[in-house]
Amino acid sequence: MMAAPFRTTRLVEFHDTDMAGIMHFASFFHYMESAEHELIRSTGFSVHSTFEGQTLSFPRVAVSCQFHSPARSEEVLDIAIRITRLGESSVTYDFEFTHEGRAVAQGEMTSVCCRIDPNQPLAAVPIPTEVAEKLKPYVV
Amino acid sequence: MMAAPFRTTRLVEFHDTDMAGIMHFASFFHYMESAEHELIRSTGFSVHSTFEGQTLSFPRVAVSCQFHSPARSEEVLDIAIRITRLGESSVTYDFEFTHEGRAVAQGEMTSVCCRIDPNQPLAAVPIPTEVAEKLKPYVV
Amino acid sequence: MMAAPFRTTRLVEFHDTDMAGIMHFASFFHYMESAEHELIRSTGFSVHSTFEGQTLSFPRVAVSCQFHSPARSEEVLDIAIRITRLGESSVTYDFEFTHEGRAVAQGEMTSVCCRIDPNQPLAAVPIPTEVAEKLKPYVV
Amino acid sequence: MMAAPFRTTRLVEFHDTDMAGIMHFASFFHYMESAEHELIRSTGFSVHSTFEGQTLSFPRVAVSCQFHSPARSEEVLDIAIRITRLGESSVTYDFEFTHEGRAVAQGEMTSVCCRIDPNQPLAAVPIPTEVAEKLKPYVV
Repeated sequence: MMAAPFRTTRLVEFHDTDMAGIMHFASFFHYMESAEHELIRSTGFSVHSTFEGQTLSFPRVAVSCQFHSPARSEEVLDIAIRITRLGESSVTYDFEFTHEGRAVAQGEMTSVCCRIDPNQPLAAVPIPTEVAEKLKPYVV
Repeated sequence: MMAAPFRTTRLVEFHDTDMAGIMHFASFFHYMESAEHELIRSTGFSVHSTFEGQTLSFPRVAVSCQFHSPARSEEVLDIAIRITRLGESSVTYDFEFTHEGRAVAQGEMTSVCCRIDPNQPLAAVPIPTEVAEKLKPYVV
Repeated sequence: MMAAPFRTTRLVEFHDTDMAGIMHFASFFHYMESAEHELIRSTGFSVHSTFEGQTLSFPRVAVSCQFHSPARSEEVLDIAIRITRLGESSVTYDFEFTHEGRAVAQGEMTSVCCRIDPNQPLAAVPIPTEVAEKLKPYVV
Repeated sequence: MMAAPFRTTRLVEFHDTDMAGIMHFASFFHYMESAEHELIRSTGFSVHSTFEGQTLSFPRVAVSCQFHSPARSEEVLDIAIRITRLGESSVTYDFEFTHEGRAVAQGEMTSVCCRIDPNQPLAAVPIPTEVAEKLKPYVV
């Protein structure tokens, strides 16, 4: 049985367009990130949180995107998120962007749960169990 | 014989950092694009130009980036660009970001030469011969 | 009688924060613009439209913002928009940002209705009557 | 005698343009900030530094910009910065953007020296004397 994806929408904002008249490709990563954070909020957590006295955040180790057709200002994009891999410290998300059924873009993002300490290098730590549990339903 | 890459540098700007204290991952794509455009300007052309009455631009069809270590505000990043594929209409660039010898990120971007007409869909067209000639020295 | 403002909300996105841990000041202008566009959409028009064969857009001639308290990632900002001046070609908006009743920022933006033609300079033109009519209820 | 302004340049980047074909107005604030930081670096300091064990940064309390003519992709903007007020904790900068002598924009930004502590509200503190001394030559 396939898990149902997490679904959200996003209106293409004017400031995300460029002089070619279309949404700038780099802004798709902003939209992916905000959709990822919405998914995490829906589980009752935040992407940048304090757990047992440690600040945790989810920097990315790898991202990619294929662009199938342009997105234009004020179009509403449908975004479907699936988790393609849930590791001990990392999560890999797949993002499918469509507009009225037309394929717009497909992205992938791998985020790693890290301890954030301004005086130390980033260090990967296990995803808190209660967060991982809430992500499982989206694992394909 | 390996072709020499095109080399440039980029200072990490404050507005490109995020609350985790490091450069936001999506901004690497802005830096890649600006480096790509600098390469194209160095050949005497522009990424968004008029050729024989047509407006040409280079939207992307695929991009990716792996992040090896964080970049921080006001660090100067060294960027080396190589062309890994030069097709009839498309160019694939490889971007290597380092800071004082430390690996920061490795990106890839495939851009397609397109005719831009506000009243028509994007259409791929051959890269003008004189531009393609100038890109060849960077092909690996 | 005071006109009721146009009201909307905006979640502070992670990519809009900076290494000081707060929303970057320049992103307030993105949020103002998106709120302005939402107001215009609510009237049945778009900020970048074709009227009688001309492409119209609303570039800004003056903007400002005062910052009263920081906005943080994932806070929901309440935005109230009032029109403080509706001229023949220009609109001046006042934006009030609050979070749970706390004053966050106050912005102002003057936009001018312009004909957009890639081959000609920007030229101010009267705001189409039907658009101006729909903006009047928000004039203070 | 008028103080000489601090001068720098900035190439308009493609990702800072929008579908109206011109540089997006909000990006002028990014360019102002980066120019401000370049001025501060030229004095031997950084906009986000540790002084006597405290992290200091310069959030803004007020910014504004008037736009005189559009800036376009790959134009080189000349930026002249003058300090119009140097207070105990705050600095007000004036930014003049020109392109080949043509007036493009004029901005103003007031930054306040603040102690940054993730666990406490922002608190204004005096600008370190050695920094203030280096800024004085740019006071009009």
